[in-house]
Amino acid sequence: MTRDISAEIARFVVTCDGASVPQSARDVMKLSLLDWVAVTRAGQAEPVAEIVRSMVAEEGSTGPCTVAGLEHGLAPRGAALINGTISHALDYDDTHFIYLGHPSVAVVPAALALAEAEGARASEFLEAALIGVEIACRMGDWIGGAHYRKGFHITATAGSFGAAAAASRLLKLNEAQTLTALSIAASRAAGVRAQFGSMGKPYHAGMAASSGVEAAMLAARGFVAADRGLEAPQGFAETHDAAGHDAAFDDLGQRYVFETVQHKFHACCHGLHAALEALTELKSAHSFSPDMVEAVTITVQPRYLTVCNLPAPRSGLEAKFSYRLTTAMALSGHDTARLDSYTDAVCSDPGMTSLRDRVRVKTEEGMVGTVAQVEIVLKNGDRLSAQHDLAHLPDLTTRRAKVRAKASSLLGEVAEASLWSTISGETSLAILNG
Amino acid sequence: MTRDISAEIARFVVTCDGASVPQSARDVMKLSLLDWVAVTRAGQAEPVAEIVRSMVAEEGSTGPCTVAGLEHGLAPRGAALINGTISHALDYDDTHFIYLGHPSVAVVPAALALAEAEGARASEFLEAALIGVEIACRMGDWIGGAHYRKGFHITATAGSFGAAAAASRLLKLNEAQTLTALSIAASRAAGVRAQFGSMGKPYHAGMAASSGVEAAMLAARGFVAADRGLEAPQGFAETHDAAGHDAAFDDLGQRYVFETVQHKFHACCHGLHAALEALTELKSAHSFSPDMVEAVTITVQPRYLTVCNLPAPRSGLEAKFSYRLTTAMALSGHDTARLDSYTDAVCSDPGMTSLRDRVRVKTEEGMVGTVAQVEIVLKNGDRLSAQHDLAHLPDLTTRRAKVRAKASSLLGEVAEASLWSTISGETSLAILNG
Repeated sequence: MTRDISAEIARFVVTCDGASVPQSARDVMKLSLLDWVAVTRAGQAEPVAEIVRSMVAEEGSTGPCTVAGLEHGLAPRGAALINGTISHALDYDDTHFIYLGHPSVAVVPAALALAEAEGARASEFLEAALIGVEIACRMGDWIGGAHYRKGFHITATAGSFGAAAAASRLLKLNEAQTLTALSIAASRAAGVRAQFGSMGKPYHAGMAASSGVEAAMLAARGFVAADRGLEAPQGFAETHDAAGHDAAFDDLGQRYVFETVQHKFHACCHGLHAALEALTELKSAHSFSPDMVEAVTITVQPRYLTVCNLPAPRSGLEAKFSYRLTTAMALSGHDTARLDSYTDAVCSDPGMTSLRDRVRVKTEEGMVGTVAQVEIVLKNGDRLSAQHDLAHLPDLTTRRAKVRAKASSLLGEVAEASLWSTISGETSLAILNG
Repeated sequence: MTRDISAEIARFVVTCDGASVPQSARDVMKLSLLDWVAVTRAGQAEPVAEIVRSMVAEEGSTGPCTVAGLEHGLAPRGAALINGTISHALDYDDTHFIYLGHPSVAVVPAALALAEAEGARASEFLEAALIGVEIACRMGDWIGGAHYRKGFHITATAGSFGAAAAASRLLKLNEAQTLTALSIAASRAAGVRAQFGSMGKPYHAGMAASSGVEAAMLAARGFVAADRGLEAPQGFAETHDAAGHDAAFDDLGQRYVFETVQHKFHACCHGLHAALEALTELKSAHSFSPDMVEAVTITVQPRYLTVCNLPAPRSGLEAKFSYRLTTAMALSGHDTARLDSYTDAVCSDPGMTSLRDRVRVKTEEGMVGTVAQVEIVLKNGDRLSAQHDLAHLPDLTTRRAKVRAKASSLLGEVAEASLWSTISGETSLAILNG
């Protein structure tokens, strides 16, 4: 007997009791909310932010939904489109290895817009966002890798269902209406990986967020959609090469796979992060200065060579795709979490290029993609080595300290402290333009 | 050497000289505009119309774009979403056999919204709509049948590119910007056939229209999209099982494949239309009354048996899927073009059921899907027979008379005459809420 995944999702969305959500899931959601606001505010002046915001704002819609970088509110669909796009503009937002997607940028903008529109409490917003990212992650797992490899942008496709789940929760839809919203999302879910490297990538996150809002709003008004648009013949799964791993939804509501979400702590390509973490560990465990370094060897999975191994970057943008230069930056005390650390000047600084040229990148076939190995040989002959696996998450206290430090570096200490107080205390929805 | 289809489309959209458009293409476009307005006005009170219109209207956007059934104007994206949905609500709009799609419902709402927003002349609107439907038809042909058979709703997917083409034309984008709009459409184009039979089907037309508007508006503001989102690796074609028949774009700008668009002249399933046309021909060529009919035989392709062969329909809706009852209706002088001809009462009328029971439906394996054969045996022994092929279009004068009669039956004679004067004279954009 095959499972009815749409019904399982709808039941979870409608019946999940906020009071029974484990504290650990709630805590991680708060970290992702802080992270999401930080990267959204940091990205609000990006060109793609200006383009999408101006298009929607000029339509003159009115509403209570805050938009990054805009002084007045808009209606929910437009706010979700803009904030979703902006929050992914820097590609510095959270990710989840269960499906190689970015859960928060598709879901949180939808949840925030409808929470504001409905006058929800901060706790209801948090729970809806958590339900949405949980569905996005599990849906990404359910859809599986063939879909992604074919070229569908799973952040946007799985994200549309997550956004629809969060939106349905905030509109207090019943199970039948939530099924309808999920079916509408099956028609709207879209986005192709050809857009990677263009403004199309962040725009997809906005599309997903906005589609989720629209799906739930239509369902609330009595829209009649196909029964099970997700799984039906000629529905989303069949057309979009989804594998349909039903086990992805095991224990839905019992445990939250979202808890293992990853936050990016370096404002560069994710492929560099494991190495930068290993370097950080070595720096804190040993005392040495850059001029004591004879040679550094970074060992990673071969596929990263074509992704982020520019040997001698010349611009701040190129620096974000260079093991050698970011290693030199990290060893020299440049804060790789800060957006403004990646400059043309740092690429040509003689101290940096000299250190960079002592870094060698090696590959090892069997290595897991989340792992990097770093070895440093000092001029005194000492050999220091560390390995980091991004999949091994530190404890909550450490994660919180790291996300808060990142948010501080993006927003400033005072703004971060105020924002964290609002988010952690679940006191208000006024988080985006605080 | 492979062709650069995106560039060919962009060049056509930008450089097509309105003055050089053949009169025949212009004339057929006018028929489709009349037909589009008629079915849109006729559908504006449908439940799906109310749902989508209220959702967008409540956002409070402002603009000069007329919306069927709304007294004030809205901004272009929202107007296109609503009007696209409404115009496909009755499924009574035009179709094209080159791709089994509905060109006008995806394109005309986008063209009208941006023509109104830009203050375009009626002739510019007509030319942009024509360019858009031409691209939609050729794109449908380029994408091919595997895409449709897999479950993608080609009206919406091919339609998004057509809508983007029309929208780009009205925003006077240059070729590079138009390429960007097409690439954004490659991310937005969506819709699954699982929605057939639900409100999702007409909503897809609105999605396509709105996506085209959005794509062009973003491109006008400097959006940077993937180079060739249509054909690039992991772009639309690769992910959406498009065949990529480049010959579909042969002679683009030299001839208009849109000229062979089909208009529906009966407010019922398209599978019944060839038979109803053959019956109409027999009725006008011979003089006989229903009580003179001994037996009728309708011969069609076997696949229609599961589509529209309800032997004894009981409701107006079921009547729309019955060879036997619609045959009885046509022979008895019921106007099958009118929406209100299909009633529960007509299904149970003794005169109708008696005639219906003298109709037999036969199939013939090798028959073309656009053909029906009708034979009537009269009680005096005369045998009358006719065959109709929907693919054989009558001349323009006949087509015009038929579309005008359909519009008259939907709108009333006075409204139709006024509307036709506006459209045929290219005098004004005020066609939807005339």
